[in-house]
Amino acid sequence: MAHDIKRVVLAYSGGLDTSVILKWLQTTYGCEVVTFTADLGQGEELEPARKKAELLGIKPEHIFIEDVREEFVSEYVFPMFRANALYEGLYLLGTSIARPLISKKQIEIARKVGADAVAHGATGKGNDQVRFELSYYALEPEIKVIAPWREWDLTSRTKLLEFAESHQIPIARDKRGEAPFSVDANLLHSSSEGKVLENPAEEAPEYVYQRTISPEAAPDKATYITVGFEKGDAVSVDGLALSPAALLTRLNELGKENGIGRLDLVENRFVGMKSRGVYETPGGTILLQAHRGIESITLDRGAAHLKDDLMPRYAELVYYGFWFSPEREMLQALIDKSQEFVTGEVRLKLYKGNVEVVGRSSPYSLYNQDLVTFEEGAVAYDHRDAAGFIKLNALRLRTLANRTRRIGV
Amino acid sequence: MAHDIKRVVLAYSGGLDTSVILKWLQTTYGCEVVTFTADLGQGEELEPARKKAELLGIKPEHIFIEDVREEFVSEYVFPMFRANALYEGLYLLGTSIARPLISKKQIEIARKVGADAVAHGATGKGNDQVRFELSYYALEPEIKVIAPWREWDLTSRTKLLEFAESHQIPIARDKRGEAPFSVDANLLHSSSEGKVLENPAEEAPEYVYQRTISPEAAPDKATYITVGFEKGDAVSVDGLALSPAALLTRLNELGKENGIGRLDLVENRFVGMKSRGVYETPGGTILLQAHRGIESITLDRGAAHLKDDLMPRYAELVYYGFWFSPEREMLQALIDKSQEFVTGEVRLKLYKGNVEVVGRSSPYSLYNQDLVTFEEGAVAYDHRDAAGFIKLNALRLRTLANRTRRIGV
Amino acid sequence: MAHDIKRVVLAYSGGLDTSVILKWLQTTYGCEVVTFTADLGQGEELEPARKKAELLGIKPEHIFIEDVREEFVSEYVFPMFRANALYEGLYLLGTSIARPLISKKQIEIARKVGADAVAHGATGKGNDQVRFELSYYALEPEIKVIAPWREWDLTSRTKLLEFAESHQIPIARDKRGEAPFSVDANLLHSSSEGKVLENPAEEAPEYVYQRTISPEAAPDKATYITVGFEKGDAVSVDGLALSPAALLTRLNELGKENGIGRLDLVENRFVGMKSRGVYETPGGTILLQAHRGIESITLDRGAAHLKDDLMPRYAELVYYGFWFSPEREMLQALIDKSQEFVTGEVRLKLYKGNVEVVGRSSPYSLYNQDLVTFEEGAVAYDHRDAAGFIKLNALRLRTLANRTRRIGV
Amino acid sequence: MAHDIKRVVLAYSGGLDTSVILKWLQTTYGCEVVTFTADLGQGEELEPARKKAELLGIKPEHIFIEDVREEFVSEYVFPMFRANALYEGLYLLGTSIARPLISKKQIEIARKVGADAVAHGATGKGNDQVRFELSYYALEPEIKVIAPWREWDLTSRTKLLEFAESHQIPIARDKRGEAPFSVDANLLHSSSEGKVLENPAEEAPEYVYQRTISPEAAPDKATYITVGFEKGDAVSVDGLALSPAALLTRLNELGKENGIGRLDLVENRFVGMKSRGVYETPGGTILLQAHRGIESITLDRGAAHLKDDLMPRYAELVYYGFWFSPEREMLQALIDKSQEFVTGEVRLKLYKGNVEVVGRSSPYSLYNQDLVTFEEGAVAYDHRDAAGFIKLNALRLRTLANRTRRIGV
Repeated sequence: MAHDIKRVVLAYSGGLDTSVILKWLQTTYGCEVVTFTADLGQGEELEPARKKAELLGIKPEHIFIEDVREEFVSEYVFPMFRANALYEGLYLLGTSIARPLISKKQIEIARKVGADAVAHGATGKGNDQVRFELSYYALEPEIKVIAPWREWDLTSRTKLLEFAESHQIPIARDKRGEAPFSVDANLLHSSSEGKVLENPAEEAPEYVYQRTISPEAAPDKATYITVGFEKGDAVSVDGLALSPAALLTRLNELGKENGIGRLDLVENRFVGMKSRGVYETPGGTILLQAHRGIESITLDRGAAHLKDDLMPRYAELVYYGFWFSPEREMLQALIDKSQEFVTGEVRLKLYKGNVEVVGRSSPYSLYNQDLVTFEEGAVAYDHRDAAGFIKLNALRLRTLANRTRRIGV
Repeated sequence: MAHDIKRVVLAYSGGLDTSVILKWLQTTYGCEVVTFTADLGQGEELEPARKKAELLGIKPEHIFIEDVREEFVSEYVFPMFRANALYEGLYLLGTSIARPLISKKQIEIARKVGADAVAHGATGKGNDQVRFELSYYALEPEIKVIAPWREWDLTSRTKLLEFAESHQIPIARDKRGEAPFSVDANLLHSSSEGKVLENPAEEAPEYVYQRTISPEAAPDKATYITVGFEKGDAVSVDGLALSPAALLTRLNELGKENGIGRLDLVENRFVGMKSRGVYETPGGTILLQAHRGIESITLDRGAAHLKDDLMPRYAELVYYGFWFSPEREMLQALIDKSQEFVTGEVRLKLYKGNVEVVGRSSPYSLYNQDLVTFEEGAVAYDHRDAAGFIKLNALRLRTLANRTRRIGV
Repeated sequence: MAHDIKRVVLAYSGGLDTSVILKWLQTTYGCEVVTFTADLGQGEELEPARKKAELLGIKPEHIFIEDVREEFVSEYVFPMFRANALYEGLYLLGTSIARPLISKKQIEIARKVGADAVAHGATGKGNDQVRFELSYYALEPEIKVIAPWREWDLTSRTKLLEFAESHQIPIARDKRGEAPFSVDANLLHSSSEGKVLENPAEEAPEYVYQRTISPEAAPDKATYITVGFEKGDAVSVDGLALSPAALLTRLNELGKENGIGRLDLVENRFVGMKSRGVYETPGGTILLQAHRGIESITLDRGAAHLKDDLMPRYAELVYYGFWFSPEREMLQALIDKSQEFVTGEVRLKLYKGNVEVVGRSSPYSLYNQDLVTFEEGAVAYDHRDAAGFIKLNALRLRTLANRTRRIGV
Repeated sequence: MAHDIKRVVLAYSGGLDTSVILKWLQTTYGCEVVTFTADLGQGEELEPARKKAELLGIKPEHIFIEDVREEFVSEYVFPMFRANALYEGLYLLGTSIARPLISKKQIEIARKVGADAVAHGATGKGNDQVRFELSYYALEPEIKVIAPWREWDLTSRTKLLEFAESHQIPIARDKRGEAPFSVDANLLHSSSEGKVLENPAEEAPEYVYQRTISPEAAPDKATYITVGFEKGDAVSVDGLALSPAALLTRLNELGKENGIGRLDLVENRFVGMKSRGVYETPGGTILLQAHRGIESITLDRGAAHLKDDLMPRYAELVYYGFWFSPEREMLQALIDKSQEFVTGEVRLKLYKGNVEVVGRSSPYSLYNQDLVTFEEGAVAYDHRDAAGFIKLNALRLRTLANRTRRIGV
């Protein structure tokens, strides 16, 4: 296997691990490495990645660096939020949703530079390897995939550092020791897992959190904001129109400052084991509540319940890595069909970790005060209709009860 | 219709409205009224209801007063929480779950006293009339049902008060004016709707909340608690074994003190319109998180995802009033089947409106640190298995992609 | 109520019942009646309906007669068959699917002629009243609906005939006696119910069947046909391109001749009771098998299984009358999304009531002989991948089994 | 890997392939082989398997032969038929349902004889390997699994025969040449796939069918039978009480004689590719119709629709091999809960490939002739109830339509 790769596109962060992978690919496969580094809003500068790639011998024309934040939010995050997706009832899928985009970019670059393989830095026990590779294959069925963590023998931190040193890969001082946990970050969230978090009975230490201040540290006074929506997507904060990425950035700031979006979760991985993760999704947590709020007055019940029934399946598909699958796209078509009038404004109260919807309004509101009021009105609601409605809904239950009575059980 | 009722069992709170109903039944139907007053944990004394019933001419042997709190929590609330039920993603179903129990008691009393009818005080626009009546019919198919709010002409507050006065029904001073909103309460929750809440764009005023203090008013220091579970039901708080009702009472105190469990929601009623409600479910909000927490380490993924997929349907059935239906009972059988090993302890942090699971442990834990660890281990996980797993999961996607490539779209 | 209708659009067949309704509307409501008679392929001439309407005093410009067969098949039948819809596992929904179209036409005519009401001839115990009226309201929310069978006192055949005679409504000789069962027909199917069919333990007599010959009477030799599909819809039979209605007509002939499409069913009505019906859907039965056949080689598994999971819900919506609802439209969007490559040819064997798919081919086939063959091949399938696939799928089950072993149950 | 197996329990048919496997296990792993041969109703005698095993050097006490037909039908086939399970709308799962039982027996024997491994003869491209191995692991998490077809190099018929000859394995004359297709059989069905069936455009030749005569060859006169049910399971044919296996045997005869139960299908395997199979399920095809027939009068609509909604998922689990999984067991609990009153008799007409339900009766029937009749009756159905029922069901659709009108789209 090691012999027939000519050129590989590596998802490259510029960090120690992917630098080791880069060098390992060169030495093991004897192939040319092309790097792809994306700005997904992870909060790191990208130019150091370029320098490091150059240093490791990558040709300038083979170093691809791209700011994909707008594409990430508009084509991945927002469609997912139209579904109100939560994996296992709680997780906002911040890592899952970034993988398909990175994969897609790698495949595009592979076509451009004529590469015959792609590689990623995900480990052999996690979900990310699945998400990367299902995406690769769905987009380029004959691509070769290299997953170094499943292949090499650098199975301990020590070996990894030795390899780095022996190949002149610079090691930042703070990378010498082992990190106390493993991290992923993008504009939607930060996740932490492993090491100190591996005992699910122990509370996550405060230093694990990187993206939010604690509720305790948040201001003692609530912040009120208004999020505007058009056709299911957020378009403004406090009246200011913002691009998708700018909007999520703004919600992240608001969430962070108010201690919003922390989640400590034991979840079920697609590869079959349970793992414990700590997630911070400050803006996303606000966005989910806001989206549910605007839907609450603009979506019909039939549409809303159908969406709710299918949400866990949609979330599972995203989590498992089936973004580029017909079934995810079919569900998306169903969801998007429902969002045409999900337009309006939601007012939210942010306070020390809490996000509360406190007001909603829409030119397309289906809420009808005349209909619901306790006051007698001129509207099309006849109390006697309720009697018939109940009677026919009860008919089958009465038939059942008559059987029970008849047979005496 | 008004002529053929001999004896009716009324769900009687002792308040003004059901007292008016009581008298209206006597005068309109000329029938004997039997009252049923339940202690569901609504926080009111019941003896005044007895006195008032006597005053209104009900025979002592026809006044039924019962403390049903334990039955309510163990037979209704807990089974529902095994499902992690949330209506429309957010509502903990506090009103919905109490109706079937009241209905069941009324039917039992009707059989005991030989009544041919039952009556309730729910209005003609709400969900509760449906919940009461579906339950009545499911349990006693030929029972006659009287829903005064759908029949009478006391269609304004003024008319109601006039009727009360003309029939010597005592009116508490604070009932003279109209209440600023309508309320329901039991051990699980309090709900408020109508009047000042009818504009969904306006924030609910603080005085609406009756069951919880605000997050702002809650202590500045977090409270940590441990909830113990056995087979899916909570059995202890901080190591102290408690009966179901006592446990929920304790969680309510903890929730109340920490500003937990408020919800401001626009929801879709079964009768077809949207309404806005404010809910307070302090203990239930803690219980849901705790139950999800203990499930996270004790439930298999297949079981958990099946439960998540069916939860919205279960919640819809409860909300719509189909508690006593074959389909709810079938879903319950499925859910209960999953709870055998949902046993253990969950540690939670309560802080100013937030409930966070911070630790979980169980003798039946499926979490396997050896399996998930980044460290190399002796456990049954071969990284190469992941490659095959991904390859076969990708096979159909690659076949699809090959088709796309073949036809050039 | 009877006084405020000015002009009503009646779904008029020209038969005795709707003629009585026509006259009853004129006399009871004192309103102008506009008739709409549709050719849905029921196999009756329409001109007699025009003459009868004129005879009953309808103005020529208020008599609407339209051949809607093409619209019926292309806009209603075909979209439904894309879903492979079967109600309660067996029923092809032949009556259900025609009602929304008739309703839509009535509403369009009501707008054209300025009518304030619509009326239909469905009884008060059936599903059709629901289907008509939900469609009316969904399309024209303030329309008034008259359902004579729920209002009048013509509650026996005798009274109906008396009314007809007293109003000079011609009664065909064979309508004098009571029909032995009740019938509905259109291009998709014929249904029979009531009377001799009301005992579900008794076999339906042969004379109930009107649309098909019996399997016994069908030819002793099989007929082979080929149905061509494009994007999920049938477009040709035996290589001959046909319009939707012409194609269904052709399949009906083929089905009829071969004794195909009979169904004797006890089903659950939306209004709450069980009923027994006999259905004949000759062409539709062939079409369903053919569509499943072409999907079997062109649809991906993920798409196919998602469709299968949602089919019962789609069928229920159609049966209940929610064609014009957001949730049906959302499901349709999901289904249609899957049909882009459902193109190709299916060969079927028709023989004495049997329809068997015996061959399928498509330029977009996903069937890959190289992949599936037992022979060793050069294709991208490594047997060792299966080992990893199984291992990771088994991981959670092994974890469970280890728990069972550990706790000794 | 080849070195650490001491004793392996092989699912042994006595045929050429598993005899080769037996010998291969002995020679490759140097381990002791224990054989398990089950009578699942495949229609072959078992004693020759014993002789052959002895001949191949298996100790008599290590040869396990068991008639598991009753267990197969009562514990696997019948529970599955309670679900009306059809994979991909058509396949009765005849192969899938047998694998868990064989696996369970192998594990039980492994415990008895102290074996550390199990082995099966399924190939590396099929579903059966998954079904066997998921079952093994679910029952005995640390068992070692040997799948010779994925490991050895006997990758052609020629090599297999050479191996057999060189190891003195007797080869039946008709096994010399390659079989024109691959076969599996048990009391529920026979399946054929591969070779002449690999082109899905070609009709399956008549000689593929082994278990049924063709509809053409079946009698020209219909056969009527009555199947009795108790709590969801068939218990009698034509009034004669039969054990589960005897009953299925009887239905198989009836089906076979009447040309019933053939299916030609392209299906989606769990391992990711499409395959074409020909199935014969004569008795099962009758049983499914009969079960649906008895359910049609004894199951409430809510129960029936919930079952229908979940059926595809249940069928998928069985097909994929997850019989011993919590989610299949949870679904089973739900299904079984519904079957308490699925008792009564169904009359069926069998004729040249057709199975028609022509009558159903039950002491627990929910069919109510008084309720459904067109005749006016004294029953609890008020036509005016239908008006209210429709009005409230329409309310949300009217609200939607009013929005549409308001915004002028």
